[in-house]
Amino acid sequence: MMRPIALLGGTGPEGFGLALRWARAGETVIIGSRDAQRAQDAAEKIKQVIPSAKISGQENMAACSAADLLVLTIPFQGHASLLKQLKPALRPGTILIDATVPLAASVGGRASRTLGVWQGSAAQEAAELVPQGVSVVAAFQNVGAEMLDADGPVDCDVIVCSDDPEASKVVRNLAIKIPGIRALDGGKLENARILEQITALLIGLNIRHKGHSGIRISGLPAAAYNSQ
Amino acid sequence: MMRPIALLGGTGPEGFGLALRWARAGETVIIGSRDAQRAQDAAEKIKQVIPSAKISGQENMAACSAADLLVLTIPFQGHASLLKQLKPALRPGTILIDATVPLAASVGGRASRTLGVWQGSAAQEAAELVPQGVSVVAAFQNVGAEMLDADGPVDCDVIVCSDDPEASKVVRNLAIKIPGIRALDGGKLENARILEQITALLIGLNIRHKGHSGIRISGLPAAAYNSQ
Repeated sequence: MMRPIALLGGTGPEGFGLALRWARAGETVIIGSRDAQRAQDAAEKIKQVIPSAKISGQENMAACSAADLLVLTIPFQGHASLLKQLKPALRPGTILIDATVPLAASVGGRASRTLGVWQGSAAQEAAELVPQGVSVVAAFQNVGAEMLDADGPVDCDVIVCSDDPEASKVVRNLAIKIPGIRALDGGKLENARILEQITALLIGLNIRHKGHSGIRISGLPAAAYNSQ
Repeated sequence: MMRPIALLGGTGPEGFGLALRWARAGETVIIGSRDAQRAQDAAEKIKQVIPSAKISGQENMAACSAADLLVLTIPFQGHASLLKQLKPALRPGTILIDATVPLAASVGGRASRTLGVWQGSAAQEAAELVPQGVSVVAAFQNVGAEMLDADGPVDCDVIVCSDDPEASKVVRNLAIKIPGIRALDGGKLENARILEQITALLIGLNIRHKGHSGIRISGLPAAAYNSQ
């Protein structure tokens, strides 16, 4: 899989962490930002750590046009407006991975609570805002930026939800390029609401217990994890 | 802690599994049921497996009067009505552990979806229905009956949520009497809504991947797990 991955909002800690991990795995990565210069600076920072990294930085819209594998790692308050802005640049066949969590912090509330999203979840809101032919996949909400920005294996499973089974498979294959992560098919996109809420629970646990928590699913047959 | 534990709805698979595990740990256990005879039969079944078990079976109301540590393991459709019925038997100082999940299956829908509960969660509904002085604690929603009904250690963490920190501690101590379980303080009762939804996710994973899944929280300092 040699298609470039564009991380929209990739200068934030979550997007930057994913960019770092995928660059290390040899993927071609584009960091997207509202500000092209900030995107280039972030890409440069990764190049300093991984000189062989195939990484560049571009304004979000340009990043979007250069890739057909997009990852949304933005705060919820910019979610709908970025998607509306990107719409003309989204081509059929594009996979949009949504890692957004509608934390109440986006309207001045707590990061350990979520907002109710009319469609059920941020990812389902995204599905409503993209043109036909674009597949939305919910994933990576539960992998904390601190886990990604470290060197060791990531102690977290990634549950992948989508109404497009092929797109879900592509994203599961992308997830397991990050050492330590196990990818699980979590079924339809409607289940994204649970993944998003788990993040709020993990943030609460982090605050209470001073850690960087993740989630592991136990008890499934080996074939369930990382199944192709 | 020698107070008897009453499992209301304890003839169902979840309640029976918890009764079995706590009887094995030497706790005094009362199985409660609408039907006293069914409760006694279930207790007898456990006695056959564990001859030394301190276990009995009683009608729900009598079980409730005989214990001040109660566990609700009933389908959501009976949740509010059982609580209303039990109200006169609930004394101040009682701890009510709510393991109920408002699965859509309770109104003919899917077990991999939840219903919206006006108060936020089944456990918060319980908190509204009990008399003053009764502490509601949300726990055990994510531990599947199949895991409990086996012999080995249970591969699942129990996240405990309550507005009463002392009651939360009592329940965490009770949880870790089951081998394999780690107990975590999950904060206030309002977080029960996330625990309840995780169960729907796990049921979906069980159906899709043919397993008996549980959840583990990674990445917290050792002191967070089983803290007294």
